[in-house]
Amino acid sequence: MNTPKRPELLVVGSVAIDWIITPKAVREESVGGSATYFAMAASFFAPTRLVGVVGEDFPAATVDDLKGAGVDLEGLEVVAGKTFRWKGRYHENMNDRTTLETHLNVFEQFEPKLPARYRGSEYLFLANIQPALQRQVFEQLSEPRLVGMDTMNLWINTTRDDLLAVLRKVDVLMVNDEEARQLSGQENLVKAARAILKLGPRNLVIKRGEYGALLFDRDGDIFVAPALPLEEVVDPTGAGDSFAGGFMGYLAGQGVEPSGSTLRTAMICGSVMASFCVEGFSYDRLRDLEIDDVQERFDQFARLTDFSRASLT
Amino acid sequence: MNTPKRPELLVVGSVAIDWIITPKAVREESVGGSATYFAMAASFFAPTRLVGVVGEDFPAATVDDLKGAGVDLEGLEVVAGKTFRWKGRYHENMNDRTTLETHLNVFEQFEPKLPARYRGSEYLFLANIQPALQRQVFEQLSEPRLVGMDTMNLWINTTRDDLLAVLRKVDVLMVNDEEARQLSGQENLVKAARAILKLGPRNLVIKRGEYGALLFDRDGDIFVAPALPLEEVVDPTGAGDSFAGGFMGYLAGQGVEPSGSTLRTAMICGSVMASFCVEGFSYDRLRDLEIDDVQERFDQFARLTDFSRASLT
Repeated sequence: MNTPKRPELLVVGSVAIDWIITPKAVREESVGGSATYFAMAASFFAPTRLVGVVGEDFPAATVDDLKGAGVDLEGLEVVAGKTFRWKGRYHENMNDRTTLETHLNVFEQFEPKLPARYRGSEYLFLANIQPALQRQVFEQLSEPRLVGMDTMNLWINTTRDDLLAVLRKVDVLMVNDEEARQLSGQENLVKAARAILKLGPRNLVIKRGEYGALLFDRDGDIFVAPALPLEEVVDPTGAGDSFAGGFMGYLAGQGVEPSGSTLRTAMICGSVMASFCVEGFSYDRLRDLEIDDVQERFDQFARLTDFSRASLT
Repeated sequence: MNTPKRPELLVVGSVAIDWIITPKAVREESVGGSATYFAMAASFFAPTRLVGVVGEDFPAATVDDLKGAGVDLEGLEVVAGKTFRWKGRYHENMNDRTTLETHLNVFEQFEPKLPARYRGSEYLFLANIQPALQRQVFEQLSEPRLVGMDTMNLWINTTRDDLLAVLRKVDVLMVNDEEARQLSGQENLVKAARAILKLGPRNLVIKRGEYGALLFDRDGDIFVAPALPLEEVVDPTGAGDSFAGGFMGYLAGQGVEPSGSTLRTAMICGSVMASFCVEGFSYDRLRDLEIDDVQERFDQFARLTDFSRASLT
C-alpha cells in the first residue's frame, strides 16, 4: 500500500543569533530568527524546508537540532561573515521590549534561492523579510496551494507598494495589532481587519501577544484564539514565529484546503506552539517536546474556552 | 401550580451622573454608576434589587428606566444635595481614560441601609465602594448563598485590612488586571491569581477590557472569556459593571450552586452584557435590548471561540 506523500512546507526568513536580556535572566548566543522558530514549530506537523542565510559563526549544534527535528536544510546558505545578530531587553511585563543592537551582517545581502526540489512546495510561509525578496520567492515557486506571510512596521512604512503587491497573492497575512493599525490606518481592529482584507489577503491573523490572536476572513467570520495564561514566561522571543509555524504546519500536515474550520484549528495549533516557545530561551522548549506534549496542550486549550451553550431563558 | 420563587439578586454600589468625552462624541448628564449598570444588565436574568443613594438632581427618567427593567428601587435613597458626578475623557484607543473631575456629593455620606425585605436576598453583589461599607452590608443580610464583589486601587492602597476582611467572605472577586497585580504584588497574572485566592475568595475574575476576562478557581482551573471584537465602541464606561451584572444575574436566574460549569457560562453572560454596554452611551443599549438579542449575542460568543477538537496526529 502506498502512503500518500505529505505536502511539503517551505519557510523563507531570517536565522539569527540573539542576545536576550529579561528581568530575570540573560542568554547570550541564543539562536533565533523567524525561520528558525517557524521550522522548529512546524516540523511537529509537516515536513518543513528552510531557506535562509547564516555566517561561519553559526553553531553546528543548531544545525543538528534542526536536522534532528526533521527540517530540510538544503536551502540554508552558509556564507563568509557573521550571522544576523540582535540584542534586546524585555521590560518587567515581559511584553514590551527595547532593541539594544541590530547587526544584519550576512542577512543584509540575503537573496532567497530555492533549491530545485523546493520549487514544487505546496505550502509556503514568507516570514518577515523585505517584500521585494518575498516576491522573488513567488517567482521561483511553481504553484503553491497555500501561502502565509508576515511583515513588520519597517516595510509598511518604507516599501509599501512592494508590500501591497505581495499581499495580493497571499492566503493568510499574519501581523501583530500595531502593524494591523499601521497598515490600515484604522485604530479599531475590526475596521483595520476589514480594510486589510480589501488589500488582497483572503484571511488575516492579528497576533496580540499575551492576549492571544484573532482570525478574520473575508466573509466577516471572526475567531478568537486565547493565549494560555502562563505562570512563567522565560523569553517571549519567537512566539509569533512559533505561532506561524504551528498554524502553517497544521494546515500542511492535514493537506486540506483551508476552510473556516481548519483555519480555526490551525489557530489553536499556533497558540500551542507559541505557548511552549516562551517557556524557554531560544527554541529550547520546542526542541525537547514530544508530539504527546503537543496534543496534551492542545486539549488544554480546548478546555480553556469551553463552556456550556445553554439557553438563557 | 406554583412556580418556584426565583432567587433575588441584590446590588449595593454607586449611582452617578457622568460627563463622558470620547474622541468622537460628548455626553453630558450620562447616567452611570456601578449599581446602575449592574442592575440594568442583571435584570435580564433575575429579579434585581438596588441599594444606593442619589441627590435631588437625579433624573426621573432613569428611575423610570430602572423600574421598566424590573429593578426594585426600594433601596435607592434620595437625599438632599447632588448626585455623585464624574467627568472623564477616553483616549484614542478607547481603553485608557483620564479622570477630569470627581464630585462625590451625596455619595460621600453613603451608608448602605437594606430595606427589611432585602435581608433575605440570596445573591449579593458588592460593587466598588469602601470595604467598611461592604462589611456593613454583610451585617444586614441573613444568609446569602453567593456573594460577588468588586473593588479598586484606592481601597487596595488605603484600607487594605478592611478589604482583606471582606475578601474572606466572598465567593467571587472581580477586579481588573492592574488591580489584581496591585492586590497581589505579582506582575504575572497566574501568580497574582494564586496569591489572591489564598486571601479568601473562592473564585477570581480578572477583567481585561477589550481583551476579555479570565476566571480562576481554587483548584487551578482557568477559563478564558473573549471580548467580542466590536467595530464601534461608543463609550466603555460601565463595561465592567455590566459584566458583573450579566455574570451574577445568570447565576441568580439559574438559582444553582455555582460550579465550574455554571461559572463559565456566567462569564459569557457577563461578556455579552459588557459588549452591549459599550455600544452606546450610559445604559442606552442595555435599556433597549430584548431577551432575544441577548440570546443571539450569547450564541455569537459561542461561535467566536468554537473549534474542532481534532486529533493532531
